Amino acid sequence: MNDMPSFTSSLTVSIEWGYCDPAGLLASRRYFEIFDRSSWLLFEAALGVKPHELGKKYGILGIPLVDVHATFLRPIKFGDTIEITSRVSEFRRSSFAIEHKLTLDGQPASEGIETRVWAKLDAVTQKMGAIPIPPEIMVHFGTA
Amino acid sequence: MNDMPSFTSSLTVSIEWGYCDPAGLLASRRYFEIFDRSSWLLFEAALGVKPHELGKKYGILGIPLVDVHATFLRPIKFGDTIEITSRVSEFRRSSFAIEHKLTLDGQPASEGIETRVWAKLDAVTQKMGAIPIPPEIMVHFGTA
Amino acid sequence: MNDMPSFTSSLTVSIEWGYCDPAGLLASRRYFEIFDRSSWLLFEAALGVKPHELGKKYGILGIPLVDVHATFLRPIKFGDTIEITSRVSEFRRSSFAIEHKLTLDGQPASEGIETRVWAKLDAVTQKMGAIPIPPEIMVHFGTA
Amino acid sequence: MNDMPSFTSSLTVSIEWGYCDPAGLLASRRYFEIFDRSSWLLFEAALGVKPHELGKKYGILGIPLVDVHATFLRPIKFGDTIEITSRVSEFRRSSFAIEHKLTLDGQPASEGIETRVWAKLDAVTQKMGAIPIPPEIMVHFGTA
Repeated sequence: MNDMPSFTSSLTVSIEWGYCDPAGLLASRRYFEIFDRSSWLLFEAALGVKPHELGKKYGILGIPLVDVHATFLRPIKFGDTIEITSRVSEFRRSSFAIEHKLTLDGQPASEGIETRVWAKLDAVTQKMGAIPIPPEIMVHFGTA
Repeated sequence: MNDMPSFTSSLTVSIEWGYCDPAGLLASRRYFEIFDRSSWLLFEAALGVKPHELGKKYGILGIPLVDVHATFLRPIKFGDTIEITSRVSEFRRSSFAIEHKLTLDGQPASEGIETRVWAKLDAVTQKMGAIPIPPEIMVHFGTA
Repeated sequence: MNDMPSFTSSLTVSIEWGYCDPAGLLASRRYFEIFDRSSWLLFEAALGVKPHELGKKYGILGIPLVDVHATFLRPIKFGDTIEITSRVSEFRRSSFAIEHKLTLDGQPASEGIETRVWAKLDAVTQKMGAIPIPPEIMVHFGTA
Repeated sequence: MNDMPSFTSSLTVSIEWGYCDPAGLLASRRYFEIFDRSSWLLFEAALGVKPHELGKKYGILGIPLVDVHATFLRPIKFGDTIEITSRVSEFRRSSFAIEHKLTLDGQPASEGIETRVWAKLDAVTQKMGAIPIPPEIMVHFGTA
């Protein structure tokens, strides 16, 4: 489709000893740490804003995760080098989906979909809530 | 349904300082660590076999995760105490699903579904592969 | 000595799959996570204040770690159950030392010494700095 | 001294959201993860052997940590970029010390000393034990 967000970012990650479980495989929780890291980098690459300045710059608390799905297609081991490619696959009113694809030696190794919200602290209730994503944000990801 | 696995296990977890992110919330990767821990405990409770003896006892490499989906319904913070209740929600030929429900103060806080396989090392290829789950395993979870 | 802090707390920890490295041993960083957890529990036990309320209760930012030393005496493996016993081994003006002893099957498995400071945010510089520890705190640990 | 190991390796690390605690500071356990990662890289740089091939190449189980000491000199925060420089500061018969220096904006931020052993599985007892470090290893670090 013409109106799908097209901006992608990529990151190469070396799988360290400390990332692996007793089977020598990348521990499942580390996939989510890698997804998280790649999501921050995607926003930095698209918006030109450092992750730790994102909140201040846009008057939000952050982009908290509300849903995540991951599939593990091939074992990833200590010593492997993987590449993760990420993009916003969909913007909704106040939430968005980030699609992550991990490859190992050029072969698909894992896929993930994170759903995050554009979140602000409500001045009255002091609770975090989702607010509409500004269109000028979406433009940077190749859509609007 | 009458033939659904009915065995459940529960675990109480205190949310430590070190589990939380700069927003003071339970880091997403920690949910998966908690799911993993609860899955091992579920198997220990159902089968009466210590996690580290599961492989030897049943001649398998383990029960690796191949797919996981999680939804985060309410923020979980440093100092909170959560309860996680887990059960095998479905046995298939060589894979099975574990359903996790996290509650905070009795309210749903997160749900997760892990898909795992009953995995053995192939003697010829030296690769890990899924093999049929023995019916005597399923019996312990209240189904067969 | 008569004036040494004598209050101790203990915690039993099951070594999970996800805590271990590819050698099947408790990953080094996890020792520090366990020390940290035990330090918070020690303060909770001594002061009767929940960890997440410590800052508010005493008008401090927290008790950040400034130095730590650990010795690993015996391998700790997946499936092991360890006990950690902790105490404040020394109070200084604005810092204190917490001594941790881990045992496995009653045998010493690791020892650690954390040095932490009683820290406040300076209202002027907005920097975190150490301030004197109130004597009424020390009393709860069996010393003053 | 002329005979001190002189080979050093350096690594730049971006401090991710997920590495930080509720105070927004690099969690203490992450320092040890960074030390560990830098130690593996140091050996790779000095010996030209990939971390996951080190054991096979030299007929050892690995280089397990037996003691570690760290000092935290300045807060490291989300968004910071640190540099870690590491070297073997001393070779003993079957153990060695690795010195790590972390800088932030060119200023010292943390120092660590790891003591590791050159470890082999004893064929008879099936226990891991330290064995003498081959002189040809030491040569690569600029000493012998």
